[in-house]
Amino acid sequence: MNLAAAKTPGAGDPFFMTTPKQAGFHMPAEWEMHDRCWMAWPSRDDLWPDIAATQQAFADVSRVIRRFEPVTMVAHPAQVENAKQYCGTAVEVVAFDINDSWTRDSGPTFLIDGKGGLAGTAWRFNAWGNKHQPWFDDAKLAERILHHEQASVYRSPLVFEGGALHVDGEGTLLTTETVVFNDNRNPGLSRAEAEREIRHALGVEKIIWLPGDPDEYETNGHVDGIACFARPGVVLYETNPDPDDPHGKVLQENWRALRAAKDAKGRSLELIPIEEASNVVGEGDIFCRSYVNFYIANNGIVAPKYGIPADERTRELLARIFPDREVAQVDISAIAPGGGGIHCITQQQPSVQNLARGI
Amino acid sequence: MNLAAAKTPGAGDPFFMTTPKQAGFHMPAEWEMHDRCWMAWPSRDDLWPDIAATQQAFADVSRVIRRFEPVTMVAHPAQVENAKQYCGTAVEVVAFDINDSWTRDSGPTFLIDGKGGLAGTAWRFNAWGNKHQPWFDDAKLAERILHHEQASVYRSPLVFEGGALHVDGEGTLLTTETVVFNDNRNPGLSRAEAEREIRHALGVEKIIWLPGDPDEYETNGHVDGIACFARPGVVLYETNPDPDDPHGKVLQENWRALRAAKDAKGRSLELIPIEEASNVVGEGDIFCRSYVNFYIANNGIVAPKYGIPADERTRELLARIFPDREVAQVDISAIAPGGGGIHCITQQQPSVQNLARGI
Repeated sequence: MNLAAAKTPGAGDPFFMTTPKQAGFHMPAEWEMHDRCWMAWPSRDDLWPDIAATQQAFADVSRVIRRFEPVTMVAHPAQVENAKQYCGTAVEVVAFDINDSWTRDSGPTFLIDGKGGLAGTAWRFNAWGNKHQPWFDDAKLAERILHHEQASVYRSPLVFEGGALHVDGEGTLLTTETVVFNDNRNPGLSRAEAEREIRHALGVEKIIWLPGDPDEYETNGHVDGIACFARPGVVLYETNPDPDDPHGKVLQENWRALRAAKDAKGRSLELIPIEEASNVVGEGDIFCRSYVNFYIANNGIVAPKYGIPADERTRELLARIFPDREVAQVDISAIAPGGGGIHCITQQQPSVQNLARGI
Repeated sequence: MNLAAAKTPGAGDPFFMTTPKQAGFHMPAEWEMHDRCWMAWPSRDDLWPDIAATQQAFADVSRVIRRFEPVTMVAHPAQVENAKQYCGTAVEVVAFDINDSWTRDSGPTFLIDGKGGLAGTAWRFNAWGNKHQPWFDDAKLAERILHHEQASVYRSPLVFEGGALHVDGEGTLLTTETVVFNDNRNPGLSRAEAEREIRHALGVEKIIWLPGDPDEYETNGHVDGIACFARPGVVLYETNPDPDDPHGKVLQENWRALRAAKDAKGRSLELIPIEEASNVVGEGDIFCRSYVNFYIANNGIVAPKYGIPADERTRELLARIFPDREVAQVDISAIAPGGGGIHCITQQQPSVQNLARGI
């Protein structure tokens, strides 16, 4: 920076001395209108067992989302042409240095102020507790996307991921203890300090803590594999009907916390079960078998399918829950081995036309 | 941010897609001209056994440095008046939310480009491996100082501290393995990735790895308690003459690495020993007993003293090594129990008049 071009301290950065909450920003619900969806192009064959199949699946997801809203695919500079070939001309491809492909977690959490302002929180990304080296480029992705969109950046000292949070857009946030208080992310962090930071970073009031999942290796129990808001006051939660299934017991503990919770408006939650894809072929320690890990697009629900009979039952359920949206399922057999589903590989950029809600 | 005021992507942020090294910035040596020294006002009596004595010692250090260069003391908003009372009118006091008082580590590492540009690297600060909660405000301090100085910010994904590095201003950096590769900071980080990040963040070429100190609790072996450059090619290193002293053996391992090292110019290092204050009263697990932990100010050396006979011998040694500077010693008996000395509580802001060196 040249001294001649020196700017007023903090100019262009409303969060220099304040926080998003103090500046009137909040994270809108995923069902509010989007300007676009951000994805990132997978390319590392040390991370993916069949990288070509995974690239095809990412391209399939991007093309389906593109029917509902614009999609921007971030690709490593060396992968831009490859990404364009798979995704077609309807999907925009931009070149940033990246390590892997989970924009839900490495991307920003976008915020609006209801007055036309766009901002975002860049969490301290550390690859889910330093699981996949190297990840330093992914740690810069949130900021790069926000700069690209001319959005202000709030840099949170919290190690956190977008997949570890869901909001109702009316002041309530869902997250899990096995992520936030994990020694691989925020050792020694107090609940009070975590709540203070999350409230300020996302403009929320009430944090509903679910226990999470102590057995899940990849994310340590992201909430977006356990439950999500369908609308204010209504939560879709994952179940496993087998009483002997160990993951079923974990899901039950999360249900118990949901049942006891009240949201920011003081409401108890209406809870709707959705059975996980427990009998899917390819299941393993990392393999994602979640049906709740779908993406809410403009007028659409882009949901995972596994090529099993339960896919159809799930489609019908989602169509009932979201009667005004088209439910489009995409086979994620080549994404699930990475430990996540469609919600994990997408990140909505809300429209600045959305209004501030009554929070 | 208002859309009407939207800026070009990356405008005002030269490190949006590049790094300080790519943009021609580097960290100058501490002996190059400073514009000011940054300190931070201690106030938490849960961290300091005698907070009033510690505040007096910080004020003493600030007043002595003020004889050589301007000093800005960051104080928590509630502590501004208190800090002003102790430090006097010659020391500028600015109000930022802070947790503790170690600007060497929570402050930025300033960079220049030799063309009038000022920038800084903000490391991921995590309180030396999550040792002292809460620390989220200190994690924001580097960026706040850089904004205050209208300097561009490079946000490094590396958990690192200013006390963990020394440079010769000619392309060589000293650091320690027990800090960078500690599980409490960067678990699983490879040497190649660490070197790549440090080179780009500070504009250096050659990294000299010292083993560090596996026994030191507070910082896990910051290099600024072990050795420092006195000028290019010359390193002052701490020793303990007692062959049975366990810390003496640790220091010997570091000396071995220094003896074998070559700097960025291919030079072997001239090594000058300085005996640590091993017989100082108050010694303990955390207590700082370093004599090498001094601050190089404009035309001055501001060095720790402990009220023991070795103080005078150390003063004479420093006067011989820095013949053009006045050596001023300040008693740090009320700072050392926090685990650091004068270098740890100071951070130089180099003058943009300094030229780019031949690196």
